[in-house]
Amino acid sequence: MSTSFELPSAVDVRLACRVGTLKGPTTGLAPGWEQANVVILPQKYAFDFLRFCQRNPRACPLLDVTDPGQTEPRCAAGGSDIRTDLPKYRVWRNGVLAEEPTEITELWQDDFVTFLLGCSFTFEHAMLSAGIPVRHIEMGRNVPMYDTSLECQSAGQFTGNLVVSMRPMTPVKALEAAHICEHFPKSHGTPIHVGDPKVIGIKDIKQPEYGDAVEIREGEVPVFWACGVTPQAALMRAKLPLAITHAPGHMFVTDLPSGS
Amino acid sequence: MSTSFELPSAVDVRLACRVGTLKGPTTGLAPGWEQANVVILPQKYAFDFLRFCQRNPRACPLLDVTDPGQTEPRCAAGGSDIRTDLPKYRVWRNGVLAEEPTEITELWQDDFVTFLLGCSFTFEHAMLSAGIPVRHIEMGRNVPMYDTSLECQSAGQFTGNLVVSMRPMTPVKALEAAHICEHFPKSHGTPIHVGDPKVIGIKDIKQPEYGDAVEIREGEVPVFWACGVTPQAALMRAKLPLAITHAPGHMFVTDLPSGS
Repeated sequence: MSTSFELPSAVDVRLACRVGTLKGPTTGLAPGWEQANVVILPQKYAFDFLRFCQRNPRACPLLDVTDPGQTEPRCAAGGSDIRTDLPKYRVWRNGVLAEEPTEITELWQDDFVTFLLGCSFTFEHAMLSAGIPVRHIEMGRNVPMYDTSLECQSAGQFTGNLVVSMRPMTPVKALEAAHICEHFPKSHGTPIHVGDPKVIGIKDIKQPEYGDAVEIREGEVPVFWACGVTPQAALMRAKLPLAITHAPGHMFVTDLPSGS
Repeated sequence: MSTSFELPSAVDVRLACRVGTLKGPTTGLAPGWEQANVVILPQKYAFDFLRFCQRNPRACPLLDVTDPGQTEPRCAAGGSDIRTDLPKYRVWRNGVLAEEPTEITELWQDDFVTFLLGCSFTFEHAMLSAGIPVRHIEMGRNVPMYDTSLECQSAGQFTGNLVVSMRPMTPVKALEAAHICEHFPKSHGTPIHVGDPKVIGIKDIKQPEYGDAVEIREGEVPVFWACGVTPQAALMRAKLPLAITHAPGHMFVTDLPSGS
């Protein structure tokens, strides 16, 4: 009758968050299920933010958008509660990080709209399964992320440049990775650039603006993907009086199968 | 110096609409460019309608959504004017067809938001190129479309069931068609059903609710795709005081390459 050797399901992970037994990162948990970046903001700003996502789909792949005040993202995870089912949140006031609570029941407002956006965990898992190296995982680091000179399509007060993540590999592996990622359009899809970082305005490949630097070995090229930090950066820049996101790495685990 | 043997480009088609020389259907014009269903409505309803599209992407594949009052759908067609660049419009008042003008400059409001949704012309063109029959084109008719029992995910006042289009072919051709349409997610993507119409609640395959009936030959099966009439039906049902759409077959020709 023991279930101790089974991997947790998506609903197990969400319930562990809800009862407070899971407060750490969700990387590798509930494999096979899409994990999501979370952005929660008042309805007043929601139509602008939704257009920003729609116009920049590689960086902001939409998995679900709730009705105003709805606490259950029904399309992505029936029976879930967005106020409690993440391990950790970030609360932003006027674009500044104010606190990092493990639930947001007290902060909830009837005009809150929740956006779930696809994240890179899904394609990294598929790449690893196909024998493609994911350097930052090998090195036990956070993925390196960079500001670029590529402008996003703006919408209302949401503006900014594309932020990219980088994974180094051989050119042959890069082609394989592109082929695999084609099947994950909701997880940032195919790479947006490969090779010379300067072409997309990256100043110093050894100094990522977010995350940690990783080693690029002899014969490898840097491969760049649109990154979920892009909408977060646009959100910070908009300096809304109040917005809530997931804490980095502490994602919302959905019931959507990977690659759906 | 003659250009009489060249096919018109997307911008040629839009300009012909603007100056009033094109007032007919756009089928087959500007091949290689995505044609779009058009829905224009006041900002007040736009966030609900955008969520309806986002939740029902097979029926409502979003190509572009404008800012309120913006007459140029910049992402899909720079330099265009949505008030003049369609051959024919439909104006709906309280869910009832009020008029069919060839331009809407006088009706334009500063709070209007324009939605461009992918249409089936794109995948039909690809199917014909691959030797897959498209019966209603062979017969010179409109595609048959049916109400189904498949409920859409609702958003605000936008609700309803999925409307599907049907093209008959052999089972082998149906598999080929599915493979081709996989590459056109912005043009309704792969079929949603093949075979027995009753399974999806179609009452009589010989009596489509919209368009014209077509012949299903010995050895052929009906193949069903999510259809752009779905959002139009939801729009009618919502009975907004004012909304504007394209007239059937009179689409907005974009600068987006087919399959983008």
